[in-house]
Amino acid sequence: MDKEKLIDLIKSRGSYLCVGLDTDLDKIPSFLLEKKDPIFEFNKAIIDATKDLCVAYKPNTAFYECYGAEGWASLKKTIEYIGKDHLIIADAKRGDIGNTSTRYAKAFFEDLGADAITVAPYMGEDSVVPFLGYENKWVILLALTSNKGSSDFQNELLNSGESLYQKVIQISCSWASDNELMYVVGATHPEQLGEIRRMVPNHFLLIPGVGAQGGDLVAVSNQSINSECGILVNSSRGIIYADEGEKFAEAARNKAKSMQLTMEEILKANKVI
Amino acid sequence: MDKEKLIDLIKSRGSYLCVGLDTDLDKIPSFLLEKKDPIFEFNKAIIDATKDLCVAYKPNTAFYECYGAEGWASLKKTIEYIGKDHLIIADAKRGDIGNTSTRYAKAFFEDLGADAITVAPYMGEDSVVPFLGYENKWVILLALTSNKGSSDFQNELLNSGESLYQKVIQISCSWASDNELMYVVGATHPEQLGEIRRMVPNHFLLIPGVGAQGGDLVAVSNQSINSECGILVNSSRGIIYADEGEKFAEAARNKAKSMQLTMEEILKANKVI
Repeated sequence: MDKEKLIDLIKSRGSYLCVGLDTDLDKIPSFLLEKKDPIFEFNKAIIDATKDLCVAYKPNTAFYECYGAEGWASLKKTIEYIGKDHLIIADAKRGDIGNTSTRYAKAFFEDLGADAITVAPYMGEDSVVPFLGYENKWVILLALTSNKGSSDFQNELLNSGESLYQKVIQISCSWASDNELMYVVGATHPEQLGEIRRMVPNHFLLIPGVGAQGGDLVAVSNQSINSECGILVNSSRGIIYADEGEKFAEAARNKAKSMQLTMEEILKANKVI
Repeated sequence: MDKEKLIDLIKSRGSYLCVGLDTDLDKIPSFLLEKKDPIFEFNKAIIDATKDLCVAYKPNTAFYECYGAEGWASLKKTIEYIGKDHLIIADAKRGDIGNTSTRYAKAFFEDLGADAITVAPYMGEDSVVPFLGYENKWVILLALTSNKGSSDFQNELLNSGESLYQKVIQISCSWASDNELMYVVGATHPEQLGEIRRMVPNHFLLIPGVGAQGGDLVAVSNQSINSECGILVNSSRGIIYADEGEKFAEAARNKAKSMQLTMEEILKANKVI
């Protein structure tokens, strides 16, 4: 999916919501466990209930890998089911020497058919570049993550005066344009979101950490939105586990609808729509 | 596998060789492609030919993931086939928020049955800790990697006077003892290997980058060996793709044998055996 189509979807749906498909057999409604592929059945119901309210889905690959080959097959079926009208982000946080990153790019872009993959920057340029240059595919590089441990290294002040996460953004934005590179910036750092927006005015930011992790949708959006929207805000647990019973999909829709309505107001207030 | 058993294996085999199973359908002998599971058949032959010469196998998960659910199944079969007398390192370079890293730990330690997993440090303590505390399992944290891009961020000088990779080691060595934590240090940095050995005198170091990436076995070993050996030196492409024909396994054995003989001399010279 190219940037133009992503922006069109945001405008037409009045939403920059990304729904995180962190599907966990211990948390999905128990009646689904009798089905042949409970993970896919759960995802299918969530997708059916939310697809007009969001522009992206983000399966975190850990939740599929932990069920081995079967989990991998459920992930592939899910991606096929989502189809072409949502950005599909494989939240895989990969990154390895060039030879190996090339394999990961093949796994996620060619075999699985994802549109985007999250990549960890620690190993530097030659670990990231193999994911670039695929037509209409995206690298979403970890910059400042939403978790507590983000302060262990990402905030380290360098001799040159910047923080590590600033250096990561500053160096990596020369590797690719904003047509194929986004950044992960956690909603738990609203003050840094504004500063990052000024560093990369045109790049999309993928913002996790609203909801279960404590980030505030309105504050976070107002710090980071640009004239094309330029942000995707993710919610995983807050939407998909809104209810444990038979009406889980309806409950997920209600949560997603509430976020979409807030996003629509923010998009209007910022003259994106 | 606990540390005592690993050291016993090193002493009895006169080897600290780790064979990297980066198995690639484009590189394995073409006659294997007719078999039902060519990746497993290739690995089985390599394992049979090298198991008395090495103490560890390191499948890089990217090479299996790129074949989807089938690749994942080949990896699981490979791990089962290796058995209990080698340290099995899933070279996965994972790391995510705590909730997700817990899933990865389950995937690699419980579902796949690996003894160790490589983990990326960028997301900090709560991304690494969920992999710790499994009995006889290991985290191998990326410190200074073997690739060119390692200089992009890992060598960044911090305000506090250390490099980022030194900070990673210094902070993380308080998270776990040397009974469950190792570090990745590339063979392409011989001068830093000695300095890292002084920082963590008792931790095992996993050293990739000998062979195809240019590191020198003798120089690297002499910089980093300790009284219990304390190092695992990996070779992937240099061993497993030593020959493209029917005698590929014999050629792999010859390459591994040559490395093992050098290692045995080094172990003796350093009075480990």
